[in-house]
Amino acid sequence: MPNRAAVMTELEHIEIQEIPEPEPGPMQAVIRIEAVGVCGSDTAYYKVGRIGDYVVDGPIVLGHEVSGQVAKVGSDVTNVAVGDRVAIEPGTPCRNCKECMAGRYHLCPDLVFLATPPYDGALMQLMAIDARNLYLLPENMSYEQGALLEPLSVGIWGCKRANLAAGDDVLVTGAGPVGLLAAAAARAFGAGSITVTDLSEFRLGLAQRMGFATERSDAPSDKTFDVLLECSGAAGALAAGMARLAPAGRAAMIGMPKKEVPLPLAALNVNEVTLSLVNRYNHTWPLAIELVSSGRIDVNDLVTHHFPLAESADALTLSSRVNDSVKAVVHPQQ
Amino acid sequence: MPNRAAVMTELEHIEIQEIPEPEPGPMQAVIRIEAVGVCGSDTAYYKVGRIGDYVVDGPIVLGHEVSGQVAKVGSDVTNVAVGDRVAIEPGTPCRNCKECMAGRYHLCPDLVFLATPPYDGALMQLMAIDARNLYLLPENMSYEQGALLEPLSVGIWGCKRANLAAGDDVLVTGAGPVGLLAAAAARAFGAGSITVTDLSEFRLGLAQRMGFATERSDAPSDKTFDVLLECSGAAGALAAGMARLAPAGRAAMIGMPKKEVPLPLAALNVNEVTLSLVNRYNHTWPLAIELVSSGRIDVNDLVTHHFPLAESADALTLSSRVNDSVKAVVHPQQ
Amino acid sequence: MPNRAAVMTELEHIEIQEIPEPEPGPMQAVIRIEAVGVCGSDTAYYKVGRIGDYVVDGPIVLGHEVSGQVAKVGSDVTNVAVGDRVAIEPGTPCRNCKECMAGRYHLCPDLVFLATPPYDGALMQLMAIDARNLYLLPENMSYEQGALLEPLSVGIWGCKRANLAAGDDVLVTGAGPVGLLAAAAARAFGAGSITVTDLSEFRLGLAQRMGFATERSDAPSDKTFDVLLECSGAAGALAAGMARLAPAGRAAMIGMPKKEVPLPLAALNVNEVTLSLVNRYNHTWPLAIELVSSGRIDVNDLVTHHFPLAESADALTLSSRVNDSVKAVVHPQQ
Amino acid sequence: MPNRAAVMTELEHIEIQEIPEPEPGPMQAVIRIEAVGVCGSDTAYYKVGRIGDYVVDGPIVLGHEVSGQVAKVGSDVTNVAVGDRVAIEPGTPCRNCKECMAGRYHLCPDLVFLATPPYDGALMQLMAIDARNLYLLPENMSYEQGALLEPLSVGIWGCKRANLAAGDDVLVTGAGPVGLLAAAAARAFGAGSITVTDLSEFRLGLAQRMGFATERSDAPSDKTFDVLLECSGAAGALAAGMARLAPAGRAAMIGMPKKEVPLPLAALNVNEVTLSLVNRYNHTWPLAIELVSSGRIDVNDLVTHHFPLAESADALTLSSRVNDSVKAVVHPQQ
Repeated sequence: MPNRAAVMTELEHIEIQEIPEPEPGPMQAVIRIEAVGVCGSDTAYYKVGRIGDYVVDGPIVLGHEVSGQVAKVGSDVTNVAVGDRVAIEPGTPCRNCKECMAGRYHLCPDLVFLATPPYDGALMQLMAIDARNLYLLPENMSYEQGALLEPLSVGIWGCKRANLAAGDDVLVTGAGPVGLLAAAAARAFGAGSITVTDLSEFRLGLAQRMGFATERSDAPSDKTFDVLLECSGAAGALAAGMARLAPAGRAAMIGMPKKEVPLPLAALNVNEVTLSLVNRYNHTWPLAIELVSSGRIDVNDLVTHHFPLAESADALTLSSRVNDSVKAVVHPQQ
Repeated sequence: MPNRAAVMTELEHIEIQEIPEPEPGPMQAVIRIEAVGVCGSDTAYYKVGRIGDYVVDGPIVLGHEVSGQVAKVGSDVTNVAVGDRVAIEPGTPCRNCKECMAGRYHLCPDLVFLATPPYDGALMQLMAIDARNLYLLPENMSYEQGALLEPLSVGIWGCKRANLAAGDDVLVTGAGPVGLLAAAAARAFGAGSITVTDLSEFRLGLAQRMGFATERSDAPSDKTFDVLLECSGAAGALAAGMARLAPAGRAAMIGMPKKEVPLPLAALNVNEVTLSLVNRYNHTWPLAIELVSSGRIDVNDLVTHHFPLAESADALTLSSRVNDSVKAVVHPQQ
Repeated sequence: MPNRAAVMTELEHIEIQEIPEPEPGPMQAVIRIEAVGVCGSDTAYYKVGRIGDYVVDGPIVLGHEVSGQVAKVGSDVTNVAVGDRVAIEPGTPCRNCKECMAGRYHLCPDLVFLATPPYDGALMQLMAIDARNLYLLPENMSYEQGALLEPLSVGIWGCKRANLAAGDDVLVTGAGPVGLLAAAAARAFGAGSITVTDLSEFRLGLAQRMGFATERSDAPSDKTFDVLLECSGAAGALAAGMARLAPAGRAAMIGMPKKEVPLPLAALNVNEVTLSLVNRYNHTWPLAIELVSSGRIDVNDLVTHHFPLAESADALTLSSRVNDSVKAVVHPQQ
Repeated sequence: MPNRAAVMTELEHIEIQEIPEPEPGPMQAVIRIEAVGVCGSDTAYYKVGRIGDYVVDGPIVLGHEVSGQVAKVGSDVTNVAVGDRVAIEPGTPCRNCKECMAGRYHLCPDLVFLATPPYDGALMQLMAIDARNLYLLPENMSYEQGALLEPLSVGIWGCKRANLAAGDDVLVTGAGPVGLLAAAAARAFGAGSITVTDLSEFRLGLAQRMGFATERSDAPSDKTFDVLLECSGAAGALAAGMARLAPAGRAAMIGMPKKEVPLPLAALNVNEVTLSLVNRYNHTWPLAIELVSSGRIDVNDLVTHHFPLAESADALTLSSRVNDSVKAVVHPQQ
């Protein structure tokens, strides 16, 4: 089978290249990639070439929100078969270290993660990956929904990190894809009320259509909350959100701030709040699939734009070009 | 205002009596009772006069699933006003002991609980109770729904006691009102899948209409579960359910077994399961109201029969007279 | 009985005044105060008249680390009797609000706390307080030890807030009284290893004599830790300590920083650490008594200086006058 | 190197046999076994050939409480070197299944566990095992102490399963090696008080010398407890112990009962207790080593008898022959 990839050869430049057809290792499968969602981190690597300590220093393939069809399987693979429609968890742990054995494989120091330098991502037609990262898509789910399980996983894990309990009143700051999916996850976890904030009227409207209460970030009410899911990464959003927490409130920082974050800890101390940082997710695909497949969470609303592989660069720059966009999906077989 | 009550003067005998109009203490309110659900424990007191160590030894008024309208308030009451439509949490704790101060007021040794000897319940027209036990009913909720918040609270608390986490596969044994509401609560908590078992085809049909998978108790599949919510109280149900738990599975015993329960602990030990006993609920009304008011849980399906106060005896014996019954509600103002 | 108090009439000025003999309310006891430890917060109120939003705006009596002997009891008191030797928990909650009923009485918005404006503290000879705040001192414990249960409680609660589990490697930054007692509490909780940091050689020496590993704050090793107990309040200590946490590490901020704290959250995010703020303590006296009484924690080492009531001002300024001091205790009956 | 093993060729019969010298696999080490503690399960296999579903159906080598010296290492081993003194965790998980990846490797369905049929144990001179099961012994620890880390691990894990928190009042039923080590672990976790029960005056005396309060099992006081660690396996011990729990009490069943256990759940329900089953341990060696090495737990007191390899049969029958015995240790190099 021929294989093509959208290779970022330098900053803000994508070339469509022929690449070798991958052969699966014994525990791997080769996936015919059908849908790749574009994440803010992809866009950051494309535009500035780094996120924190992760620096792009050579050609790289982006994309880590992925689904596709199994094209080949290695000799020891038993959980999937050729032809299966699958969603892909993008991180492959070592299964050997203290973190892996403690149930924290997502913090494995040797984690191989799609589209995080120096590892390539999934904006290609055929890709080999550990078959244990694959989850079967139910018949009633599309590849597009399969790709969006990745940002939904971020929202689910954020709720878990915040110890979100049924009945909690939840504030979600930032109505981008992750914020909206975190809000959807919070509702699936039994949140009592959910309020989403943003500055974009378009996004607030989308949040409303998804059934959430909304506020403009710059005009907060005086409501207090049990849980904050900070999904904007905006300067000051975490401090402002934590100040709205009730006694024993819990905050999860899902959005990634650019620099040091000043927090008024002496004041927050009175309410004895807890702040949990969030690094991706751990074992969230089964729940994400169940929530989407059962209709309890609808991810289709978020996909506003589609692109063939050749237009990957347009997909990567969508958010800065089109105000009223939420999520771009690239279809590598097109 | 005149006041009438359905007084159980002896076993299996109810008299409608005129009783004094209650005056509220400083922190109390007088409630015009509008709906009282009949619980299996009411029926047990009516028929055999005892549940475990709680023995009826004089006239008693039954009924503890209650809603109504505030008719009077004491001098120190600030949370409700005359005319408010309210649901009633039936247990009044001392707010003074170690359990109360540890956040476990439901285990307060001095808890005063409606319709638990020696305390009267709510099958009357006017009743005084601590105003802190009252929760405002949203406009879109009926008194009937308000009364059913009590059994829903049992289900919610059972889920909490089982540490039910989003994504768990849940087995609910027993499709009576509490089992069905526990299943509904499990779904609201984000359960991955929910399977309800019973012997009654009528109840299994109701469970199916509520969207749950079903099995006959006597013909279990070989599916395993993360969580068991035992709601039948049937002999052997707990042991059989626990045997279906996956490693690290959690069981909550919500149904009350009649005698000693033999458990095959040496075998269950391999999977290191946990069994949590369940004594009513703790601070569940706000969540119960939110889940019903938002439409995430529909309790109306469970109410199959209605009775005026004068027919309280019929309500108390409904389950033994009518096979296809689920929940009886008494309307004391009728 | 005559009664005298050390009244702070203005900044940095104490007057010994005759004050009325207190009469106990029905649930109160009058305590003959025998030992009052001086805390950094007392010194802060004495010198600058405020801590955060708490402002001294009139005469105030300081002191909240307290023990004494019961001199009178109110009509409803049953847990203590005249002559009992007791330690005093300084906060009196309302027992009525949502926080109190949720087991978080220390976050009660109406908490009355000794020596926190506008409430007086315990630098007096006779003081009335809710008898439910009193804990009997075992015979083998001194009043001085009884007073030090308060800072030990801060350390215990910090360990609880950090979810300190047996086996955790613990870093304690700041070797003042609270830091040393937090380290002692960590050992009592089964910490695997405990490292204490400070700049003072005197305090590091004391930490070593108590059996802890030590490091100079300005010359950290490259060891990593599961838990950080930040007890210095120093600028940068929290960020530096959190950077030394292993994956899934937990930090408790016990020391109170003066201003906004800049945290490098994007970097800390990789290890998915958790930061818990700490507001005093909740139900820690029974454990504190058990740990001191059984000899598992020795608090005597910390008391370096003693003062009679008339020299309360000297006690309040000890830390700034004497380098090699740790804890001053005032004896109001002297 | 020659190699000899104590092989149980039939019930109640041991033969000392020459066996091949093991060669390490790439991730394995060969250990020169220096100390093997005898566990009640070894004795049960020796006498009746089964424990629950685990049945001895051929020659087997017993012994799973083990320490020794590294004699050879496989090509990929990096954590130990020839000559290292090590304690051995006896279970080897697959590192691949859902349980392993969830941090529950001890519940791995493919766990290979020493001396659990069909797997051989350690009553031999040289044994190969996964090097990741090895923990370095500090210089101040003996091989004998190293072997006793295994039963100590059972006690530690029992405390964890019971959510034992600092300050809890703990009841330990059964003063055998596991009971005494569970009590020691409870103290290391910060238990408030610890009471050990047994029928043997010898064992109660030992418990007293270790600093625990004691009661005869047949003459319980009316003290109540927060935590029960049931370590006797005796009929009725679990039910009797659970009945002594305070509200919200937690029980861990560490001793293995022979048959179905009847529990008075309806009565226990009032206090809403929790029962956690216990299957060995998970990641306990580092803490066990720290507690023994630091002197916080002294395991030497438990070892009452020593045997050379040739007398393994005597070691396996010690408890039934000698009343005042606690723990036998076999030294395979003697």
